[in-house]
Amino acid sequence: ALPNVIKTIAEESKKLTNTYLRTALHLHTSGTMPISVFGDAFPHAGVMYFFQTFSKAKLIDDFSQIPVFVEGRQIDDLRAIFTLAQTLTPRVYEASQHDRERLHVAGVFANNFTNQMYALAADMLKDTHIPFQVLLPLIDQTAEKVHHLSPHDAQTGPAKRRDEQVMNHHLSLLTTPEQKQLYTLLSKMIMMSE
Amino acid sequence: ALPNVIKTIAEESKKLTNTYLRTALHLHTSGTMPISVFGDAFPHAGVMYFFQTFSKAKLIDDFSQIPVFVEGRQIDDLRAIFTLAQTLTPRVYEASQHDRERLHVAGVFANNFTNQMYALAADMLKDTHIPFQVLLPLIDQTAEKVHHLSPHDAQTGPAKRRDEQVMNHHLSLLTTPEQKQLYTLLSKMIMMSE
Repeated sequence: ALPNVIKTIAEESKKLTNTYLRTALHLHTSGTMPISVFGDAFPHAGVMYFFQTFSKAKLIDDFSQIPVFVEGRQIDDLRAIFTLAQTLTPRVYEASQHDRERLHVAGVFANNFTNQMYALAADMLKDTHIPFQVLLPLIDQTAEKVHHLSPHDAQTGPAKRRDEQVMNHHLSLLTTPEQKQLYTLLSKMIMMSE
Repeated sequence: ALPNVIKTIAEESKKLTNTYLRTALHLHTSGTMPISVFGDAFPHAGVMYFFQTFSKAKLIDDFSQIPVFVEGRQIDDLRAIFTLAQTLTPRVYEASQHDRERLHVAGVFANNFTNQMYALAADMLKDTHIPFQVLLPLIDQTAEKVHHLSPHDAQTGPAKRRDEQVMNHHLSLLTTPEQKQLYTLLSKMIMMSE
């Protein structure tokens, strides 16, 4: 939990309180935490937020593709952090706490909730003889499309066409109340965004 | 709308009623329509459903990557349709109306609703200086991950970790009732699927 993480970082940083460390630059790599987590003990502090999912099972083989968002407590801190980040990737952006928080939510939509859509697609196929793998070309093409078009312009499907008969037919095939609620809500959001 | 499409196909097919056409094989390419749309006039009929989004703006440059789902009214029809489909792609599957309907819904989740997640991520960034393009590596990695892991095993994020403080913080950053409702519902579904 966030306050617990803040507390942990704050307590860990207290252990470092040797006098010379006041001049050292302290960084965290979190998307949601403010710089102020370092407290007053360290005047030189900042954030280096790598915008990517990390997993223990898979090493990052190419940092240069990963955007990194940096913030510094002081202008000299920012300059140092920027230079450090550029040794890893050319995609370095300055981002305030305000922007970084919204980016973190955007990441939940683009990663966790997108993955949940894949999970629901997989659930639909459980009652068939069709393997999940047949969805992969469509999943890849959907991701590829927003490299060239805005998501709004890329949208297709029954909700976009306001095809109520297809939508009602789909609703009749869904099995849980949550699936039906989700289908209705997302269709409504797509129709609203015209 | 579906019944209108069925009506159109049925009416168009009536125009073809020359005697020799009774021996011809009639195909449609819809994911949701049954074979019975062709009526009794054509004893040889079937379905060849290409599972991919088509768009006028972008030609399909490689049919061999696209799965196709076939069904035939008679066993000879199925054999002919299978052979025809194999000239376009090696990924030919027989699928009943039951399976094809569920595949069509799976496609809505894997394509239209996934794209809506991208749209919501884009909306989150509108209030920042961060361009949508920074999301592309994450979007690509999310799609790539389910080539090797099931969506369930690939899931990460605050809902998966049951991190209520991060989830509540994210809810406070969302601006519309629909966004909040969606965030809550999807987080609940991810937590339920443990």
